[in-house]
Amino acid sequence: MTQPFRARQAWRLADLAVSIGATLDGDGETLITGAASLDRAQTGDIAFLSDLKYRKYLEQTQASAVILSKEESQAWADESKIPRLIARNPYAAYAKAANCLYREPVPQGSVHPTAVIAASAQVSADAVIGAYVVVGERAVIDARAVIDSGVIIGDDARVGVEARIYPNVVIYPRCEIGARTILHGGCVIGADGFGFAFDAGQWVKIPQIGRVLIGDDVEIGANTTIDRGALGDTVVENDVKIDNQVQIGHNCLIGEHAAIVACSGIAGSSSIGRYCRIGGAAMIGGHLSIADYVTIGAASPVFSSVEEVGVYSGIYPLLPHRQWQKNAVQLRQIDTLYKRVRALERELDKRKDDSDSSSDGSIL
Amino acid sequence: MTQPFRARQAWRLADLAVSIGATLDGDGETLITGAASLDRAQTGDIAFLSDLKYRKYLEQTQASAVILSKEESQAWADESKIPRLIARNPYAAYAKAANCLYREPVPQGSVHPTAVIAASAQVSADAVIGAYVVVGERAVIDARAVIDSGVIIGDDARVGVEARIYPNVVIYPRCEIGARTILHGGCVIGADGFGFAFDAGQWVKIPQIGRVLIGDDVEIGANTTIDRGALGDTVVENDVKIDNQVQIGHNCLIGEHAAIVACSGIAGSSSIGRYCRIGGAAMIGGHLSIADYVTIGAASPVFSSVEEVGVYSGIYPLLPHRQWQKNAVQLRQIDTLYKRVRALERELDKRKDDSDSSSDGSIL
Amino acid sequence: MTQPFRARQAWRLADLAVSIGATLDGDGETLITGAASLDRAQTGDIAFLSDLKYRKYLEQTQASAVILSKEESQAWADESKIPRLIARNPYAAYAKAANCLYREPVPQGSVHPTAVIAASAQVSADAVIGAYVVVGERAVIDARAVIDSGVIIGDDARVGVEARIYPNVVIYPRCEIGARTILHGGCVIGADGFGFAFDAGQWVKIPQIGRVLIGDDVEIGANTTIDRGALGDTVVENDVKIDNQVQIGHNCLIGEHAAIVACSGIAGSSSIGRYCRIGGAAMIGGHLSIADYVTIGAASPVFSSVEEVGVYSGIYPLLPHRQWQKNAVQLRQIDTLYKRVRALERELDKRKDDSDSSSDGSIL
Repeated sequence: MTQPFRARQAWRLADLAVSIGATLDGDGETLITGAASLDRAQTGDIAFLSDLKYRKYLEQTQASAVILSKEESQAWADESKIPRLIARNPYAAYAKAANCLYREPVPQGSVHPTAVIAASAQVSADAVIGAYVVVGERAVIDARAVIDSGVIIGDDARVGVEARIYPNVVIYPRCEIGARTILHGGCVIGADGFGFAFDAGQWVKIPQIGRVLIGDDVEIGANTTIDRGALGDTVVENDVKIDNQVQIGHNCLIGEHAAIVACSGIAGSSSIGRYCRIGGAAMIGGHLSIADYVTIGAASPVFSSVEEVGVYSGIYPLLPHRQWQKNAVQLRQIDTLYKRVRALERELDKRKDDSDSSSDGSIL
Repeated sequence: MTQPFRARQAWRLADLAVSIGATLDGDGETLITGAASLDRAQTGDIAFLSDLKYRKYLEQTQASAVILSKEESQAWADESKIPRLIARNPYAAYAKAANCLYREPVPQGSVHPTAVIAASAQVSADAVIGAYVVVGERAVIDARAVIDSGVIIGDDARVGVEARIYPNVVIYPRCEIGARTILHGGCVIGADGFGFAFDAGQWVKIPQIGRVLIGDDVEIGANTTIDRGALGDTVVENDVKIDNQVQIGHNCLIGEHAAIVACSGIAGSSSIGRYCRIGGAAMIGGHLSIADYVTIGAASPVFSSVEEVGVYSGIYPLLPHRQWQKNAVQLRQIDTLYKRVRALERELDKRKDDSDSSSDGSIL
Repeated sequence: MTQPFRARQAWRLADLAVSIGATLDGDGETLITGAASLDRAQTGDIAFLSDLKYRKYLEQTQASAVILSKEESQAWADESKIPRLIARNPYAAYAKAANCLYREPVPQGSVHPTAVIAASAQVSADAVIGAYVVVGERAVIDARAVIDSGVIIGDDARVGVEARIYPNVVIYPRCEIGARTILHGGCVIGADGFGFAFDAGQWVKIPQIGRVLIGDDVEIGANTTIDRGALGDTVVENDVKIDNQVQIGHNCLIGEHAAIVACSGIAGSSSIGRYCRIGGAAMIGGHLSIADYVTIGAASPVFSSVEEVGVYSGIYPLLPHRQWQKNAVQLRQIDTLYKRVRALERELDKRKDDSDSSSDGSIL
């Protein structure tokens, strides 16, 4: 059922080595036509060893080349004639190799005849606009951006150089998408933040007049939503990676290189530090600050700021249902349990004191 | 990076006061062109003081006018000549002022030439239909409704007076959207509820023949989903506010003025009381009833009905990972811990009894 | 407010019995025009008794026919002349009857003039393609498939016989949808899995060259996202039912007949066994294996593989906020509480030993 996905053109291993910055050890004329895991690789595939628990697959691999560290290559030296690419970070090197092999051909600049583009919009001549795309007044589409079918881009919005917008994405007015940024299908950028004042028994809507500003080299997953700011902007900095079905509330700031895994939510006016790793399914409250380099574990709720670097978790343990029921009974009254323990401690102390002070040994 | 967003036209402060029902104290000819926070306001902006921790910004504010309560205005009386708008609820008054300033111009009734509208549909002459909108058979679009690009409206659906439907929303057949209701990008109204019967080793689909009925003045966030009922309807009452990525299951009833924050989910056949505040990321089980005025805290799961007014929480505390690991070990066996405490209590009682009954003081 | 939804044509009860495989007991000429619950049924409706807590409604029901088990029918024998359909599984039988009554008419094969279909695509003559659909190069749309408005189908994708794709769905290139499979509005199939390698201070994207393969008779809810595999494919087997706003990560395998309720998330490379029931709002970590027939409770996080059949829960109990606060204090230090209990136990043991060894009864 798994069909090998062939690269569009073969690469000489020597050229691939240069392209990804790895050291060639073996026949540079080897032709590489695809990437695969060590155990599934066939002739023409390049594979990699990163997680050492897969080392056992080296022996039998049918790969035409393998990316691995210098140490691992030396350990494997006498067992095979398969050429190697030596890299300090084999996983990243594999990523770069796969990017070379599977780089999608960039369509030539073209605008589908069905695209509706406002007269005042500025669309770069080499941008690619798909079928049924709508581009609003004064919107700007920069060089070589690729806008897929069904995308709706609002007035005064901007899509950066070589950005890639997948089908049916919605970009609300005045929002900005940086260079080489990728937005996956169905995501919605710039909807109103959730702002209401309660007055005389009903809600009054607070206009959300800020924008969403997304930096360069960002990737945003399918059906993710990022709200525009109430007064200021919601900002996602460069090289942030956001997975599917993530919600970013109005006026958040997501720091450079942060990664937010699927199903996470960040409430309004919170800031996520640079290089943070959040989630999946983490829930972060509003008006909080998460320091740089913090890792918030999956399914963990965060309702205070986190100021120290480290890994934080808040997952409830899974148990067979009956055991969970018994534990839940106790958990509901854990405060009482604590008081009972404290009472026991005091009682024991009291009896000890009584015993110490008693001359005839009467006790408790 | 934050550009001030100017209102489309300036307002005389006196007119703004009348419009929002606040009392003017100062020069009513002051021209207001925007709204901003106290610390960021510039000439032409109106700001507000609601949360007293921002009171310190009053001294230095560059705002041309400030909305605040009578008490706060009196406290500030001798320090500034900045005109004030006195309001009982400054936050709500600010919301109303911002609505005046930033009211989007309502486009004149128009139907984009690319809209596909069924012959039997009834579209009000002053409704606005955007590019690539599809309106189904016998659907009704009421006066001054605004349907943005890419929206798909099913047969027999109805969109109310001055409703605002943002791009790429999907409204399934027979569903109804009330007056002035706002649906944000990508939300899906009326997909089938999750109904299946299991029989002879496989699933049998149960047709979901109810509808979704959404009242007036409702706002529904981006990529939120509300399912049609199995037999009866799923109902969202007037003035309900639902954030992004919320899931409402079939046959739910959401009471007037309730607010449901992002990432929450409500399983089928549950009812949420009037004025409830739910979430974010709250998860409410099926066939439950949440009384009026209840607040369910963020990230809190609810699996029994809640009958008493109050605030309820169910968040697992976040801890540094190693501490969380140690706690998780104990939490998995908290029922055992309780039994050990109870055993200690009985042992102590027993030793006391033995001591009391012993004449020669022998003990434990 | 609840309008009865009439079936498009009436069914003779005798014909319905044959169609759903139930035994007729009563007048087979009875005309059935709709389905309803026992308490709301009117003349022409068929109702059912499955959950015995609704048995009380039998007495007063206005239904023209009732589906129930043989035992329940015998218990009801002398009280009414309402014809019955006897079925081993009344709920499933009702589902089949409702399917007969409410079967949507399948539109004749047609391609909307606005559909953009690549010249190399193969679209079956009796498929139905709606307005503003885009079908990519070499894509295949099989017999009697129904593709609703605004759906975007990528190059080399395939949609199976009689599949039903609701509006604004996005199917990325090379993904395959099986026969009779239903995809609800806004779902996104085949977006890139979340794969990045971190190197020299920034992220390197890992191309996701696998596909999504969805089997036959699957149903996928609104705004659900299923990611394509990194190297191999993401696979959803036959007769799987997935609700709204579910996230399935790259390279997952979802076993036959599994049901995944709304708002759940499954991280990459995990496998869900056959007949599993997951969620709602369950969160399953990556690289895990859930055995066949396992039930994971709602709002429960799973971060280890589950190998034994059973029901598993991990929900934090909801409490009034103040009680939750007190408990949270203790829960944060439950490891300490355990140590205090253990210290008490040791102290008691010690005092007992001392008492036993003491000849003059001195104690503690």
